[in-house]
Amino acid sequence: MVRAWVPYADLDEAERRLGGIPAGIEADCWKADDDTTPGSTADVEYVVLPYLRKGAERVLADLPALRVVQTLTAGVDDVAPYVPDHVTLCNAAGVHDASTAELAVALALASGRHLDEFARNQERGLWKRDFGTAIADRRVLILGYGGIGAAIEARLLPFEVASVTRVARRARTEPLVHPTSELLDLLAQTDVLFVIAPLTDETRGIIGAEALSRLPDGALVVNVARGPLVDTDALLAETSSGRLHAALDVTDPEPLPADHPLWHVENVLVSPHVGGASTAFFPRADRMIKAQLERLAAGEPLANVVRAGT
Amino acid sequence: MVRAWVPYADLDEAERRLGGIPAGIEADCWKADDDTTPGSTADVEYVVLPYLRKGAERVLADLPALRVVQTLTAGVDDVAPYVPDHVTLCNAAGVHDASTAELAVALALASGRHLDEFARNQERGLWKRDFGTAIADRRVLILGYGGIGAAIEARLLPFEVASVTRVARRARTEPLVHPTSELLDLLAQTDVLFVIAPLTDETRGIIGAEALSRLPDGALVVNVARGPLVDTDALLAETSSGRLHAALDVTDPEPLPADHPLWHVENVLVSPHVGGASTAFFPRADRMIKAQLERLAAGEPLANVVRAGT
Repeated sequence: MVRAWVPYADLDEAERRLGGIPAGIEADCWKADDDTTPGSTADVEYVVLPYLRKGAERVLADLPALRVVQTLTAGVDDVAPYVPDHVTLCNAAGVHDASTAELAVALALASGRHLDEFARNQERGLWKRDFGTAIADRRVLILGYGGIGAAIEARLLPFEVASVTRVARRARTEPLVHPTSELLDLLAQTDVLFVIAPLTDETRGIIGAEALSRLPDGALVVNVARGPLVDTDALLAETSSGRLHAALDVTDPEPLPADHPLWHVENVLVSPHVGGASTAFFPRADRMIKAQLERLAAGEPLANVVRAGT
Repeated sequence: MVRAWVPYADLDEAERRLGGIPAGIEADCWKADDDTTPGSTADVEYVVLPYLRKGAERVLADLPALRVVQTLTAGVDDVAPYVPDHVTLCNAAGVHDASTAELAVALALASGRHLDEFARNQERGLWKRDFGTAIADRRVLILGYGGIGAAIEARLLPFEVASVTRVARRARTEPLVHPTSELLDLLAQTDVLFVIAPLTDETRGIIGAEALSRLPDGALVVNVARGPLVDTDALLAETSSGRLHAALDVTDPEPLPADHPLWHVENVLVSPHVGGASTAFFPRADRMIKAQLERLAAGEPLANVVRAGT
């Protein structure tokens, strides 16, 4: 038997959500809106960190039998420092694609069609039309072309966009993905830039003053990746002047402090890092956990390994 | 030569936007943000009413040579009473599909993912997460299945919706379109209802208390057609109680008066009838006008005839 901690309220919920717990797995439950830990700290080998449970990763140092940590996030930058070297770290690649891509498109559409302005006018009972910028006919660039980047592209294609250009660290053909070295030149032909690259030493600040200056007047920057990919001061300058627009689900710093000037730029729409935080998450997370537990019970290689244990 | 009034500032703009004025057409310009009328009232045969120019239709009674009125809207209910019986009335079917379908999807996504709430929090510098309802996995019903309905469907499919059900006056197969008589039964299986049927005696109030009561708890009503398709009082009751959500680009009455209670229901998002009012409009309107002028010059049947002149 492999002991596993799963992110459900109790075994009834775990059974229901997973469609049964695979044979060979002994499951204990711990959940996000709680601060208790299952009693099986001596035996647990596979730990799924509950989604959005602050500090859950701190217990990992005290689990002697631990072999695998499974996050429910795509990014693992917050958790990785707490995972001992001998333990394998798996992320939730794929689980958030639908939710995050959906939010990215929602932000782009809402910004272009002034839904933020209308929501504020609504509080004042003000019916005031404002001509929108459609995503139709616009040239799109997607920076970062993993699962979420591809999911954004799939969602945009029926909107009659003029073109979609893909840029990522690893250049490819079929589909054509440009290397990051070509980014600056490509931005001059970009009306809507979606940022969905992972945060690494190479990507930190990749959308800085130089990159932003290449974008044509009226272009929109959508960031659903990590705040520090975009230089906040540079973006603030280009949006405050009215030259560029931005729709940001992530910011730097994050959370954005109450007195931060970015809150009050007319051309900027901010959502509070909710890319993965939607109902689309649950069924996809459940399917991923179930598949991982089945692999674990069968002694098969796990999916989504981002760092193998030594 | 056929004399036509076209909705551009001057002949230079008309030439540029249309890619040349077809041979056989003598064009005079009148525009939306003006109240002057071309001098050729005695000769004009084809009149394109400028988009969103209030009251332009009132001149139609004083044009003795008039044969065709061309609107730039899909709905002609406002204009039709001013078009003499012997004059043919053409609408702008197709021109607004991209813009309106885009707004319909934007409203549904923004409502589910709380972008209206976040926009209001932004004014207060408030970073407050709220778990969203994705459109992924939701059962969609599209009421009205002309060009815009089909365009909404095309845009939704990559969002991993659970299903799309189509309902229209004229039932069809391939794709399957249910007759309006089945609407009430289908609503019980609907999470997101898009209303995009034309306003007629049969559709006025079609989404009333009975229809709304069939929708499951938490369902969303999106109206991008005409306000009176939905019974405002009934919708107010079902959204104020928190049972249903709504995202409305059109309302009844319209504009919504400053003191109307619909403005202040938390589950309701209102945009001020801007479905067609985006940059997607111009190139599509220009292509339609050009094609109609070419047909007119060649003596060919016009497209988009909604009422033939007697």
